[in-house]
Amino acid sequence: MKTYSVAILGATGMVGQHYIRMLQNHPWFRIKTLTGKDSVGRKYVEAVRGEAPEPPKEVAEMEVQPTDPKHVDADFVFSCLPTEAAREAEPRFAEAGFPVFSDAAAFRMEEDVPLIVPEVNPDHLHLVKAQRKNRGWGGFIVTTPNCTTVGLVLPLHPINRQLGVKRVTATTLQAVSGAGYPGVASLSILGNVIPYISGEERKVETETAKILGRFDGGRIAFDDVDVLATCTRVPTIDGHMESLVFETEKKTDKETVANLLAEYVSLPQELNLPTAPRKPIIVRPEEDRPQTRIDVDAGSVPGMSVTVGRIRVVENKVRLISLSHNLIRGAAGGTILTAELAHHFGLLEG
Amino acid sequence: MKTYSVAILGATGMVGQHYIRMLQNHPWFRIKTLTGKDSVGRKYVEAVRGEAPEPPKEVAEMEVQPTDPKHVDADFVFSCLPTEAAREAEPRFAEAGFPVFSDAAAFRMEEDVPLIVPEVNPDHLHLVKAQRKNRGWGGFIVTTPNCTTVGLVLPLHPINRQLGVKRVTATTLQAVSGAGYPGVASLSILGNVIPYISGEERKVETETAKILGRFDGGRIAFDDVDVLATCTRVPTIDGHMESLVFETEKKTDKETVANLLAEYVSLPQELNLPTAPRKPIIVRPEEDRPQTRIDVDAGSVPGMSVTVGRIRVVENKVRLISLSHNLIRGAAGGTILTAELAHHFGLLEG
Amino acid sequence: MKTYSVAILGATGMVGQHYIRMLQNHPWFRIKTLTGKDSVGRKYVEAVRGEAPEPPKEVAEMEVQPTDPKHVDADFVFSCLPTEAAREAEPRFAEAGFPVFSDAAAFRMEEDVPLIVPEVNPDHLHLVKAQRKNRGWGGFIVTTPNCTTVGLVLPLHPINRQLGVKRVTATTLQAVSGAGYPGVASLSILGNVIPYISGEERKVETETAKILGRFDGGRIAFDDVDVLATCTRVPTIDGHMESLVFETEKKTDKETVANLLAEYVSLPQELNLPTAPRKPIIVRPEEDRPQTRIDVDAGSVPGMSVTVGRIRVVENKVRLISLSHNLIRGAAGGTILTAELAHHFGLLEG
Amino acid sequence: MKTYSVAILGATGMVGQHYIRMLQNHPWFRIKTLTGKDSVGRKYVEAVRGEAPEPPKEVAEMEVQPTDPKHVDADFVFSCLPTEAAREAEPRFAEAGFPVFSDAAAFRMEEDVPLIVPEVNPDHLHLVKAQRKNRGWGGFIVTTPNCTTVGLVLPLHPINRQLGVKRVTATTLQAVSGAGYPGVASLSILGNVIPYISGEERKVETETAKILGRFDGGRIAFDDVDVLATCTRVPTIDGHMESLVFETEKKTDKETVANLLAEYVSLPQELNLPTAPRKPIIVRPEEDRPQTRIDVDAGSVPGMSVTVGRIRVVENKVRLISLSHNLIRGAAGGTILTAELAHHFGLLEG
Repeated sequence: MKTYSVAILGATGMVGQHYIRMLQNHPWFRIKTLTGKDSVGRKYVEAVRGEAPEPPKEVAEMEVQPTDPKHVDADFVFSCLPTEAAREAEPRFAEAGFPVFSDAAAFRMEEDVPLIVPEVNPDHLHLVKAQRKNRGWGGFIVTTPNCTTVGLVLPLHPINRQLGVKRVTATTLQAVSGAGYPGVASLSILGNVIPYISGEERKVETETAKILGRFDGGRIAFDDVDVLATCTRVPTIDGHMESLVFETEKKTDKETVANLLAEYVSLPQELNLPTAPRKPIIVRPEEDRPQTRIDVDAGSVPGMSVTVGRIRVVENKVRLISLSHNLIRGAAGGTILTAELAHHFGLLEG
Repeated sequence: MKTYSVAILGATGMVGQHYIRMLQNHPWFRIKTLTGKDSVGRKYVEAVRGEAPEPPKEVAEMEVQPTDPKHVDADFVFSCLPTEAAREAEPRFAEAGFPVFSDAAAFRMEEDVPLIVPEVNPDHLHLVKAQRKNRGWGGFIVTTPNCTTVGLVLPLHPINRQLGVKRVTATTLQAVSGAGYPGVASLSILGNVIPYISGEERKVETETAKILGRFDGGRIAFDDVDVLATCTRVPTIDGHMESLVFETEKKTDKETVANLLAEYVSLPQELNLPTAPRKPIIVRPEEDRPQTRIDVDAGSVPGMSVTVGRIRVVENKVRLISLSHNLIRGAAGGTILTAELAHHFGLLEG
Repeated sequence: MKTYSVAILGATGMVGQHYIRMLQNHPWFRIKTLTGKDSVGRKYVEAVRGEAPEPPKEVAEMEVQPTDPKHVDADFVFSCLPTEAAREAEPRFAEAGFPVFSDAAAFRMEEDVPLIVPEVNPDHLHLVKAQRKNRGWGGFIVTTPNCTTVGLVLPLHPINRQLGVKRVTATTLQAVSGAGYPGVASLSILGNVIPYISGEERKVETETAKILGRFDGGRIAFDDVDVLATCTRVPTIDGHMESLVFETEKKTDKETVANLLAEYVSLPQELNLPTAPRKPIIVRPEEDRPQTRIDVDAGSVPGMSVTVGRIRVVENKVRLISLSHNLIRGAAGGTILTAELAHHFGLLEG
Repeated sequence: MKTYSVAILGATGMVGQHYIRMLQNHPWFRIKTLTGKDSVGRKYVEAVRGEAPEPPKEVAEMEVQPTDPKHVDADFVFSCLPTEAAREAEPRFAEAGFPVFSDAAAFRMEEDVPLIVPEVNPDHLHLVKAQRKNRGWGGFIVTTPNCTTVGLVLPLHPINRQLGVKRVTATTLQAVSGAGYPGVASLSILGNVIPYISGEERKVETETAKILGRFDGGRIAFDDVDVLATCTRVPTIDGHMESLVFETEKKTDKETVANLLAEYVSLPQELNLPTAPRKPIIVRPEEDRPQTRIDVDAGSVPGMSVTVGRIRVVENKVRLISLSHNLIRGAAGGTILTAELAHHFGLLEG
């Protein structure tokens, strides 16, 4: 089949490195351009920050380009730019005709911008038609949610669909890689917990209602799920754990909830997309799982499954623990899977 | 004034070491006997496990005694025995005439055994009269709650009293010292979170209702507060953090909640008991506090205050973070303060 | 070619789990029996301690056998028994005709027992002929060194051979997995360094001279290298780092040392043994490598290469940092490679 | 007695915070001015970086001043400026008549600048006379060594004096607070060791020879001790551990070395200076001490004693472990003690 050439905007950060690793042997997508800011003109391998695994040779030697459509030759772009840079650059790329798949926060909540978790709301992708029309763009912007939202909304989806979900509270225990590099100072987090991550709680609360919303072909009606989040940083490397508590509208029990999660598959699985894990949600029966360090890479595509455990149901109150890889399912991997879905819908065709 | 001689049952563990440190210059209580199990007959300093600060010389040289009333010469005893050992030994001490102040779990939920947080339910201490009568004991058993319960029930008390509290959910992030020594293997917790602590959630849920209950002089009517807990272990040394979410029956706002907590004082403060912190609850206004490593020793009596922060109120839903020292307020310190209260009530007099 | 059936003695510990993982797709060796102690009669998957990755299905279902030749059906055995158990059991297996490949410490320093690092002293394997004769055994015992010795002796070998090495001092920074499970208490090591590991320094110092010794067909003449070691435990998961300082007898410089290490290959590489890494020693030129967490799995066979960096030479004084995987090259992997070598020498043939 | 008013240059960093804590109740020195860079004009409590304990109220409210003699009203100054800032500012203060006591690296190795460890080379302070004359300054600059040098040179001093020391090798395990705030990224150090600290090894090697040198009233003749250092960063908060190996010229044994260290006192102890610990070196007999987290604050003035343990002597080769608090003895505390000594010598008098 046809392969697509892709550019990665903001490729030198931690998420950029995961894009490069995951696209290395991708059957459809080929990396053609990497952009950066302070590192423009240097070889990628010398520009990359943090302690990344060494990139494949052909990528290592690429010269970092400015984040500017004029310097980018690609069929579409992935963006892992910081929020402010994304706000400025992504519309210029969309205007210049590029499909933009972004895990940046800048446009997630705009009315005509899809915010996609591929298993949950694949149909929202079609919102780009309205977007193109509204904005007169040849390309478009598709976003993926905050890394913490993903670990909440994926397990919520099958339960909400069958049983109705309300009064969701989430306490998260997030890894330091979620703050990028250098991110959190070691002095701040060794042997410590910081019960605050700037802006995170609001993102989780608002994004969830949009993702679970109903798309009528023209606009998205937000779901009325109410989420209250408390986000904390703990001294783990990768993997965001979430302690979720919610009520179901219908009566339920532990076995029902466990089965809804364990048997959950959706369009990406049915289409057998390259980056789709066989099981989006892995349910662990042990009383002390999932654990961050041990389960973060679970799944047939490592890091693309959310692991759920400690399901407890008292009357209609459900408690469970979810764990997701913040840089893979919560960033690079989730966005690549979204682009694969866009290909399926024909949205990548010129 | 009169001083009391005290024995510490199970003195070689981590909590025992904190008893010794806190009683070192106590104005009323003098350590006279230390008991142990495998270490009977050895000097205390050689018997102690873990990396304790060196005990004062007169304690270091004491010979560890068997946990048996015949070998104990003291006006009353503190017990930090493991649950099963406590179940067997504490009644024998009470029968032999000793007041027993215990942070062990064995008898906390028995109908005629007080479960005390000194600021919250000091009056429950009088339940020992019924206990002595029921059981025909010269002494009695008074218990203090699980370390995690304390960090929940202290901030809940003033709010419940004024505003009514319901639908409490707690997610805890507990330090490794809560599991004693050797406790949690380093391989299990370095860079990891374990979302399970055996038996802990049930304790938090049941103990809270008893402590907040009403004592009518004869028995305790449990409060109808409903608590759902999720307990996790994180790689911190000392200090249990709790993310609490609850609803209030009356309308409220952030300022009201903050003031109720910051201004909270109770009988131990009024009596100026030696181990009572001036403020049982310290409210931090910063958006990223309390933090485990930084705030665990807060207060005029280090480790005896609970630090609360991140108060957020949406309609009648309240979220906050609480932090308490699991070995001090949650164990040795809380129990010493309980004994001080018992002295005030005249319960230590022969 | 013929495959061998193997037994793993003491299979439920951390090293045992690495044997199982590394033998899973081994071209020559098939796991047939697993032995244990307290877990005899249980399924392996239920007996295993610590947080292992799940074993392959056929191994998971095996019933754990007693560590007794009568219960073991195999062509040869790997032993990762604790020292005392090894001292008792290994001779019984050798007497019963089994070749025993052991990473236990019990027999390493016995005069007629080979102590093998496959690249360094493959010829020492032939010492088993004397051993069989001395002891009248049908089988034999071959040992591999302490995990810390390996990271010292592998880089020392090519330098000693070419330049002569003396006055070696080693300060090690060892990971907690080296102490097994549960091993080091989290309270003891979080945010801490413990500058002592029982028995470790003596092992490193004595084993090195034997491994570098000369085998004349009958016995091993120890090398006169003098080693002074200081062993510390640091809060890392896997991977022993060593800061080595030594003098060379001949003049040298940084480039010479780096080349000797980088170009080092030996018999296992020449024979292309299944578990032999293409490069036994990987030299990193960066000023801040190797790092424990990042480089521990380096090499074409992950964990089988030692990574060396920070080579500094002042006159004839050489300093360098070495890093080796204590459970793979330092235990299971090193012993499997030794057995592969024994096969090459025809020592596994009945 | 007279008290001196002092300024702290670069007061908002981590070392500055320790100066403030240690000077809080100082009998001779009163903080009068705090200087900063980006925070000029703000209250100190709002300018301070990192998670400091709250400063005393009168300090908290001080307005941060520019690092400029015109804005500083004080009898003398402490400088904890970054190297480059120190290189520019400290001479301007000395020229303007201020005695400057600095733990910055900028001038340590200048021929006419004393580099002081108060117990080791108090007489070197008199070098400031030559300095003033050479440079025509009313004031002067006195420096204190790199934090890692202190933990090496203090235990070396009594042994070198009695037995002669040569061929010193040091491998350090340094805490993250040594890199300041934000310093080391948590992603870089959690569960990891980084065997490199920029510039550190050269400092340790050169400073030691100067400190141990002989001052003849005019200049310092460097000692001929040869030091080879390897510096690593480990995930600990405070406290630099060092594994030292050296040879003595005279024959010795473990007991002799232990006694030389344990009985070591010097001028600061004889003068009973306010910040002098009763024992500059504490010798621990246990086989597993000192430990970073447990022993870092040892001593009668917490953090001012170096703890030494694991003394091993083989022929004339000595191995030991030393531990010192990098922010106290290795920075603020060492410099305050140096100023106390200067007062004794009459160097603070106008």
